Amino acid sequence: MDMNRLKQQIGFLVEIDKLKSIYRRAVLVDRSRHENDAEHSWHLAMMALILHEHANDPGVDLLRVVKMVLIHDIVEIDAGDVSAYDLAGQQDKQVQELKAAHRLFGMLPEEQKTEMFELWQEFEERSTPSSQFAAALDRLAPLLHNYHTEGATWKEHGITLDMVMTRNAQIGQGSEALWQFAQELIRDAVEKEYLPLD
Amino acid sequence: MDMNRLKQQIGFLVEIDKLKSIYRRAVLVDRSRHENDAEHSWHLAMMALILHEHANDPGVDLLRVVKMVLIHDIVEIDAGDVSAYDLAGQQDKQVQELKAAHRLFGMLPEEQKTEMFELWQEFEERSTPSSQFAAALDRLAPLLHNYHTEGATWKEHGITLDMVMTRNAQIGQGSEALWQFAQELIRDAVEKEYLPLD
Ligand SMILES: [Ca+2]
Repeated sequence: MDMNRLKQQIGFLVEIDKLKSIYRRAVLVDRSRHENDAEHSWHLAMMALILHEHANDPGVDLLRVVKMVLIHDIVEIDAGDVSAYDLAGQQDKQVQELKAAHRLFGMLPEEQKTEMFELWQEFEERSTPSSQFAAALDRLAPLLHNYHTEGATWKEHGITLDMVMTRNAQIGQGSEALWQFAQELIRDAVEKEYLPLD
Repeated sequence: MDMNRLKQQIGFLVEIDKLKSIYRRAVLVDRSRHENDAEHSWHLAMMALILHEHANDPGVDLLRVVKMVLIHDIVEIDAGDVSAYDLAGQQDKQVQELKAAHRLFGMLPEEQKTEMFELWQEFEERSTPSSQFAAALDRLAPLLHNYHTEGATWKEHGITLDMVMTRNAQIGQGSEALWQFAQELIRDAVEKEYLPLD
């Protein structure tokens, strides 16, 4: 057993404890506080386990989807959480996240660094059925949180129906079934005045 | 597509948001607050991805390990977190957790309920190489948190070296390598006075 290799791996695992202190715009369903990235990533992994039958491509690799959602936000330890609706922040975000990926995954032994980096890039690029399904879950989760908190984050940030529809249409790329469900949820949110028309 | 089935699955996924509000004895490495079960489960899943090469049994099924650690604490939504050192609480805990497993996993479609229930039981019984490795990770994580917070939880609850050694020897069942590492960590914690001899 290579104790140095093991200690290097543990060093990474201790470092990523910081993901528990990166807070998102989303609010917990019980509305007690904002959600953090680590528990968000757990929730996406649970969604992957339970919902993968709804992926458009029946060949989606569940373990790969789970890996992607578990690691997709780790870069935010260095780069922070930038709102999906903050278009000006998106450019700088890409540079910061690339640097973060190099520093954080770079703490791992070489071949694990490569694996994590490639998983993260695949998720970012949504270029495969597995990453398209993973990304669909990442879009669906905030919809569920908004719906079950009467639109807490939508109202706080002045988000309207148009913005939600444009942003979330991508769900259909990974799962038509989840997109159909999401549209129903959105229509109902408008009806209940959780989400303003404009 | 069966929209009723999908809605049932979503109902379960919304319900388990509550795991983010179940707090553990463990304190985050940055010591800002106690850790919750959802982010703890994420961290164990990351440990599984990075450390599975150290399992005693090379045939350990990584996806199965990840599933087990993701779901192992969901029963605490109803049953709460009982300290591993509270022996009187352990008996009642088993009954409460069994009821919780039936209620929570019972929200899922039948065959998913069965899968989740069996995964949870396998984890509880530590009867397979995959569950023994998953349990080893669940033991190792609090050691890492204690070590990196100068023994915060040990000190708060009057935990001594004997108790830590007895409880954590089980790590070796899943991974001799992790147990060797853990013993080194524990020795160093005693040296640094994070953990009292008695
Ligand atoms: Ca995300």
